[in-house]
Amino acid sequence: MSDRQHSEHASQAGEFFHALQARLCNELSALDGAASFDHDLWERPGGGGGDTATIANGDLFEKGGVNWSAVWGEFDDEALRRLGGSVRDFYATGTSIVLHPRNPHVPAVHANFRYLERGKDAWFGGGSDLTPFYPVPEDAISFHQAWKAVCDRHDAEYYPRFKRWCDEYFYLPHRGETRGIGGVFFDELRGDFDPLFGFVRDCADTFVSAYAPIVARRRNEPYGDTERHFQQLRRGRYVEFNLVYDRGTAFGLATSGRTESILMSLPPIARWEYEWHPAPGSREEKAQAYFQPRDWLAERAPA
Amino acid sequence: MSDRQHSEHASQAGEFFHALQARLCNELSALDGAASFDHDLWERPGGGGGDTATIANGDLFEKGGVNWSAVWGEFDDEALRRLGGSVRDFYATGTSIVLHPRNPHVPAVHANFRYLERGKDAWFGGGSDLTPFYPVPEDAISFHQAWKAVCDRHDAEYYPRFKRWCDEYFYLPHRGETRGIGGVFFDELRGDFDPLFGFVRDCADTFVSAYAPIVARRRNEPYGDTERHFQQLRRGRYVEFNLVYDRGTAFGLATSGRTESILMSLPPIARWEYEWHPAPGSREEKAQAYFQPRDWLAERAPA
Repeated sequence: MSDRQHSEHASQAGEFFHALQARLCNELSALDGAASFDHDLWERPGGGGGDTATIANGDLFEKGGVNWSAVWGEFDDEALRRLGGSVRDFYATGTSIVLHPRNPHVPAVHANFRYLERGKDAWFGGGSDLTPFYPVPEDAISFHQAWKAVCDRHDAEYYPRFKRWCDEYFYLPHRGETRGIGGVFFDELRGDFDPLFGFVRDCADTFVSAYAPIVARRRNEPYGDTERHFQQLRRGRYVEFNLVYDRGTAFGLATSGRTESILMSLPPIARWEYEWHPAPGSREEKAQAYFQPRDWLAERAPA
Repeated sequence: MSDRQHSEHASQAGEFFHALQARLCNELSALDGAASFDHDLWERPGGGGGDTATIANGDLFEKGGVNWSAVWGEFDDEALRRLGGSVRDFYATGTSIVLHPRNPHVPAVHANFRYLERGKDAWFGGGSDLTPFYPVPEDAISFHQAWKAVCDRHDAEYYPRFKRWCDEYFYLPHRGETRGIGGVFFDELRGDFDPLFGFVRDCADTFVSAYAPIVARRRNEPYGDTERHFQQLRRGRYVEFNLVYDRGTAFGLATSGRTESILMSLPPIARWEYEWHPAPGSREEKAQAYFQPRDWLAERAPA
């Protein structure tokens, strides 16, 4: 996208994330079974650009996207104000995935893997979290098991640390609840490039294998207006999280990022009703009880 | 709600705003013709409380609310961090109105009138703005004329200043557009209590008379799926404004305000589609052109 010389690491990461996007689009399109991804290539005036791939009205996915970007240049004043420090020179590349299935029994899912350089400093970030509407312990456990397995292959401290970080990050204080049932989240992972890149590549390879079995178990469960209504209310919380708390969204919008690529994360339809509460004893009331941090791999889930 | 002694001005303002809420609920319920407001009284642990009145699934209003509150106490550290200064003692009272009509030809409308004290300092704030989906110049002009008339009765500089302030405040930089066609917005209006209170009372009395004629002109216009779809996409922008930029929302959520009362402003249903654009020459494309600041009372609107 430009002739500027990047570090060898930046080029390696940027190419990996772009290839990852292509692979994920193929696998997720196959998982959907009907729709495929449309690609939108864009350039960033200050340096770099991206490839925003979106899917809509599929058999499985009502709306979703797999964004890749590799951008570089000089942080503007607003970015410096938000990030602190004085070094303006940066390079950032990554792939973000957000999938909103139509069937309310299939959880929404999000993942992001990224590599950043700022002056001489360099780090990785990433993670993946699951947002079911009707949480099923079996799914939460299999999702966490998949992420624990990949973490444990690299560092025994990763899973407990990144699982807790995820619970803390995807939390809506004004609702007193988590966005979903968590997963893993990490940022500012610094150190030798090769082992860290190996960990992030391993995570990226885990995404579909952590999510697809849950899809397979839930996609044929019947649903009606009650489930769609609850799904839309819960998606309202998803919107609240992304617009009020998500640091990437806030940073992107404040620093003139590409709006449509940033907001591809929002659900197709969301709903708000004043003081909506599930009926006592309903499945919706049981569902609400799951939106608190929980150690899925250590305890038995409540009935 | 407490035995704490308030200033005479605080008591006067608080009582006026509560009576205003009752009057607005009656008038707006009559305007709806079918639904009425449900009242929810709440107390704030640190001092004061409110009355959240909401309406839903009416003949005119799909969702709406008229909130009154009078709260007082000591700002916590988060509030101080956001507001600056070191004085913690505060009193705040006001009435907020947000109405989301079902018919996409009837504009959504918002107004807020408030009085605040912080230590020895005291000021009024307020305003009202209109958010049409299919803007009609006649409506924008009559709305602005109503607010100009009330402003001009108090200070010839008010309307031009508060109109510009409204355009600047209700602006979404990441979309490069205003939330609607504006109105008036003012804050930190300091000076002699009586004339300022007189101005704010006059504004409060203007609200229904500025909005009802627009409702009367539009409420029987037919609409179908195309108009509802566009309305939901535009409501998505409304959600973006309220959750990303609105200072009252951010302050309320960050300082443990009452979440359901703060978020009563959100529309019933909102929609997001990646890179949605209206068809060339469509009414939706024409509508989009109105979401820029415009001097409604000085120029003829475009055809």
